[in-house]
Amino acid sequence: MAWARWGCCPWLVFLCALGAWGHPKAVNLTGEDVRNCSISPPYLPVTAVNTTAQLTALRQQMHNQSLSAYIIPETDAHMSEYIGKRDKRRAWITGFTGSAGTAVVSMGKAGLWTDSRYWTQAERQMDCNWELHKEVDITSIVTWLLAEVPAGGHVGFDPFLFSIGSWKSYYTALKNSNIQLVSITDNLVDLAWGSEKPLFPSQPIYALKEAFTGSTWKEKVSDIRSQMQKHRKGPTAVLLSALDETAWLFNLRGSDIPYNPFFYSYTLLTDSSIRLFVNKSCLDSETLKYLNSSCSGSMCVQIENYSQVRGSVQTYASGDVKIWIGTSYTTYGLYEVIPLEKLIEDTYSPVMVTKAVKNSKEQALLRASHVRDAVAVIRYLVWLEKNVPKGTVDEFSGAELLDKFRGEEDFSSGPSFETISASGLNAALAHYSPTKEQHRKLSSDEMYLLDSGGQYWDGTTDITRTVHWGTPSAFQKEAYTRVLIGNIDLSRLVFPASTSGRMMEIFARRALWDVGLNYGHGTGHGIGNFLCVHEWPVGFQSGNIPMAKGMFTSIEPGYYQDGEFGIRIEDVAVVVEAKTKYPGSYLTFEVVSLVPYDRNLIDISLLSPEHLQYLNHYYQTIREKVGPELQRRQLQEEFQWLQRHTEPLSARALRTTSLAPLLVVSSLIILGWSV
Amino acid sequence: MAWARWGCCPWLVFLCALGAWGHPKAVNLTGEDVRNCSISPPYLPVTAVNTTAQLTALRQQMHNQSLSAYIIPETDAHMSEYIGKRDKRRAWITGFTGSAGTAVVSMGKAGLWTDSRYWTQAERQMDCNWELHKEVDITSIVTWLLAEVPAGGHVGFDPFLFSIGSWKSYYTALKNSNIQLVSITDNLVDLAWGSEKPLFPSQPIYALKEAFTGSTWKEKVSDIRSQMQKHRKGPTAVLLSALDETAWLFNLRGSDIPYNPFFYSYTLLTDSSIRLFVNKSCLDSETLKYLNSSCSGSMCVQIENYSQVRGSVQTYASGDVKIWIGTSYTTYGLYEVIPLEKLIEDTYSPVMVTKAVKNSKEQALLRASHVRDAVAVIRYLVWLEKNVPKGTVDEFSGAELLDKFRGEEDFSSGPSFETISASGLNAALAHYSPTKEQHRKLSSDEMYLLDSGGQYWDGTTDITRTVHWGTPSAFQKEAYTRVLIGNIDLSRLVFPASTSGRMMEIFARRALWDVGLNYGHGTGHGIGNFLCVHEWPVGFQSGNIPMAKGMFTSIEPGYYQDGEFGIRIEDVAVVVEAKTKYPGSYLTFEVVSLVPYDRNLIDISLLSPEHLQYLNHYYQTIREKVGPELQRRQLQEEFQWLQRHTEPLSARALRTTSLAPLLVVSSLIILGWSV
Repeated sequence: MAWARWGCCPWLVFLCALGAWGHPKAVNLTGEDVRNCSISPPYLPVTAVNTTAQLTALRQQMHNQSLSAYIIPETDAHMSEYIGKRDKRRAWITGFTGSAGTAVVSMGKAGLWTDSRYWTQAERQMDCNWELHKEVDITSIVTWLLAEVPAGGHVGFDPFLFSIGSWKSYYTALKNSNIQLVSITDNLVDLAWGSEKPLFPSQPIYALKEAFTGSTWKEKVSDIRSQMQKHRKGPTAVLLSALDETAWLFNLRGSDIPYNPFFYSYTLLTDSSIRLFVNKSCLDSETLKYLNSSCSGSMCVQIENYSQVRGSVQTYASGDVKIWIGTSYTTYGLYEVIPLEKLIEDTYSPVMVTKAVKNSKEQALLRASHVRDAVAVIRYLVWLEKNVPKGTVDEFSGAELLDKFRGEEDFSSGPSFETISASGLNAALAHYSPTKEQHRKLSSDEMYLLDSGGQYWDGTTDITRTVHWGTPSAFQKEAYTRVLIGNIDLSRLVFPASTSGRMMEIFARRALWDVGLNYGHGTGHGIGNFLCVHEWPVGFQSGNIPMAKGMFTSIEPGYYQDGEFGIRIEDVAVVVEAKTKYPGSYLTFEVVSLVPYDRNLIDISLLSPEHLQYLNHYYQTIREKVGPELQRRQLQEEFQWLQRHTEPLSARALRTTSLAPLLVVSSLIILGWSV
Repeated sequence: MAWARWGCCPWLVFLCALGAWGHPKAVNLTGEDVRNCSISPPYLPVTAVNTTAQLTALRQQMHNQSLSAYIIPETDAHMSEYIGKRDKRRAWITGFTGSAGTAVVSMGKAGLWTDSRYWTQAERQMDCNWELHKEVDITSIVTWLLAEVPAGGHVGFDPFLFSIGSWKSYYTALKNSNIQLVSITDNLVDLAWGSEKPLFPSQPIYALKEAFTGSTWKEKVSDIRSQMQKHRKGPTAVLLSALDETAWLFNLRGSDIPYNPFFYSYTLLTDSSIRLFVNKSCLDSETLKYLNSSCSGSMCVQIENYSQVRGSVQTYASGDVKIWIGTSYTTYGLYEVIPLEKLIEDTYSPVMVTKAVKNSKEQALLRASHVRDAVAVIRYLVWLEKNVPKGTVDEFSGAELLDKFRGEEDFSSGPSFETISASGLNAALAHYSPTKEQHRKLSSDEMYLLDSGGQYWDGTTDITRTVHWGTPSAFQKEAYTRVLIGNIDLSRLVFPASTSGRMMEIFARRALWDVGLNYGHGTGHGIGNFLCVHEWPVGFQSGNIPMAKGMFTSIEPGYYQDGEFGIRIEDVAVVVEAKTKYPGSYLTFEVVSLVPYDRNLIDISLLSPEHLQYLNHYYQTIREKVGPELQRRQLQEEFQWLQRHTEPLSARALRTTSLAPLLVVSSLIILGWSV
């Protein structure tokens, strides 16, 4: 899990599934850290950004367009999880750099709406031009607009930054009012930002080698066209807006977005043509040839400029056509140019749904990337075991070393999200990542939570391990073991094909619930082949599609003790067929993350024989898959560590800690006493 | 569970949650049982109804209204689960008496749309005037209409028989077509039916004695008004359309509907008045006095005629008002007379949501009714144990005897639904109830499934037990035990307050899923205090509201082996606070049904020590609560039976059947071998 931008839709659901974490306590917060706008003159900390010039420039643009207010969401034109620098408009106008929140500017006021994870950060970074609204729903923004905007006033927005869903929410809430919503394709923040705005990226776009792809782009195009032909509503085209849709379809990658190997793009795939909207200058002649870009048949890719997409779609939509879209990732900027009767709307495009199920080659690639990723994580854990007791390791330098280890693995292409390297109480904070300036020292007296992942040409990884090098408290061990039981109970669940993840994620919680504990985030998300680390629409949330063989998902229960410690145990698992006693179409999970859990934190007395059997089988798998890789690389110390940490959990431990209750049960049964 | 009308919305969801049961095999079906319209002349079985006269009369009415087609749903003006005789319009026009299905008549054709449970029945009961469409979605009906109705044609419907949801579906599907939907408040089937249509019922409406109510109607009215005052959208009135809403609010009952003690009614509760729309002649002077009907203050009930509701609501809606409705139970007939800006729409009205949580007195009443209900069921089970081996008992006479036993209990007011008394393969049929003409003999060689319930002045009951008096097969025992484990695992679940039932119902399935078995219906539904046996919106389905302390729900997993046997184990449980090791707001269930499970069908080797502990605790509760009642009534034979059937499940059984595996586990652990 990467917390960074799990606050935006649809990631919001994951984080907020159970009311998020509550309000995190501010760490070391003093009066000097945050602004105080109620005194005169106002107090502003050094971290606050003076936004007067930005607001003046924006209001000038609003004035030119006769707008009374302007809405600035935190997203890009592709509803991406991570956004590029040039899309950080909300940060530029507010000063607030948190990854979730919406700004609204009227002629006299300016407001930021964000969730509890970011309230303190907003008070540190914003000056007194800004009101902080501790809410996130559109109703609250609309209420503010109704009070601020005069009757007959116009409220502007960039339609490329509005999902269809948010547009509908604003539209419905305002339709009986005296205020008009105005879609303006020239982004007013961009106009105000002017020449200081980062340029459109010009990094090369490259084709993946065939060894790293599950099928060729032509096979994928044919498959999607065949789905179009079978569709009862007769689509003539599929419009792709999410960046990973186009990257997956053409087996192309780029580096326009942090952590995601994507490039700004759209695709309009029709029954007789393929149009790729992209920054043309990023494609070299080899890639153009790869795409058959010089011909004009149905299997030739016509390259059009990224900025032409709206016009091209509008022109195409004027014909006798039906355009199939996934509403989750299409923005209002394209939606509004397609007549309603020419739209075929599904929540997810056929590409999104097809991509969710990995074919056997893609599965093998993803599994292979997890073996090498385990080597990097194990190298780091071995290094920590030796160095933490010396008192020389901190959260930030540790994370840097892990990045280095991952970078040394074959096919490495950087981290898949910002590493969460959190010691002690920091691990209980929802959005914590250490910085060069602010971090905590690792200690044998504290738990350490490491949530990280890598991008490799063959796969994307994401794993969380929580460790303790000293003597954990009984409560810490109980909480860790119950989180582990949740991970195991969900991982070994046998379920009918097409069961939704939402229905089954309770198994990850039950062992915690039994004693009154819980966690306030979702239980897992899909993951791609050198694509998104949070690959929608697979996972355990209400918006996710049913589980099918070949899907990959994380499984990541946790427990967080505010101000003390945080636990999360995250593995990636693939959905496989289950062999059941009676015939039927049943599935289960097979974990592909291959790093042992911390034995020091497991209270074996809480585990059932089935849990022990599962764990020992998993350890055996780790030995078989990672052991040879460590030996091949002559990482002897790591190999010894792996052997130690995958010793079967056995009666030796159980005998000393937990044999008694089981023996009592057995004895009572033997004695004929009812248990 | 009563299958009878669980096919209509929202009960449809329950039944169809997992694709229903598949297509039930027809029992003893021969060519002579069903119609054959493909030969000339067509073959019609004796059970088929000649509907030519009905269709001619209806088409005359359609002609008078210039309609090209007319839609006839199977419902009443209150979206009731059970409907009165005068509302069985679809049965009258088609001949088909099944409880789910929609008829559509054009000038040249007539079609019935129904689900797989009813296809055979429809082929038996309909003549060749009718096409049978083996689909239920509105899209299919609309496709038919688009082909049958000429351009510019009008399609009529009775707005009081359309939920807001179905109206929206038809409207959306037809809005871009050349066909117009026409709302006609005079029901055309009624006009065609004429004097033969059953009269509006005139049974008395009576007030419940205070001993059987949780609060007075004045307290309830004050509570709902207080919720209106607190609502941020400022409702001035609540409009109640579901029959149990009005019955609950005023503590009034009637007998207009089978199995439900309700009377045709609406309520418009405003901030300053109370209007009850009802057949005035059914209220005697005592009840009028009870309702303060002769005054005109805010705590006086103004009685208006049932048929005036639309006009009265329309008049009220012309003022400066806001009317709060629950969209699930309000029909388009009232919805269309309220301007949209004066509507406050929730899925369920505040009365529906308030009624869902029983106060302590209501809880005590419901629990008490379950003790007496257990006495009736136990009397029947004891009688069966003696008489089934004689070969003199059949499904129908058995059900009649059970009704008699229930009728002898204090405060009895008839069955709460049509008893499902099903032997052998009949128990695998989704909608089976025996009739005087068609039934099966009970036998010691077969399993017997009994799903039944009673209405009592203090509570409504619903319980299912499955029994076998001979030697069940190993598979039958395994399936029964896994169903029982599901019942236990869900019943003993500890969960945070406000968890939705949908998320937790998987616990009722896991033990079945483990070996590749499942069931195709929902896992439970709310239940009322002398109200609906299926009381929405409590339960385990996606439309249900989150679980809260004081809610009552059934828990009823099952397993059905097509053509062989059916198993269901159903209890009613109340949501209570759970005491957890660490503090928190956690809930669990306490079962209030008090009839032992069939020991003959339990394979103890499949139960964990926790399951045994739970069962024995439950048996102890049954002894404590039902034992004294049996003794008080001098039902000695039944008391002895109860003692035998609630003996703690102990090692005697376990030793012979299942001690071995546990001992192996223990031994392995002792030997230090990893399990």
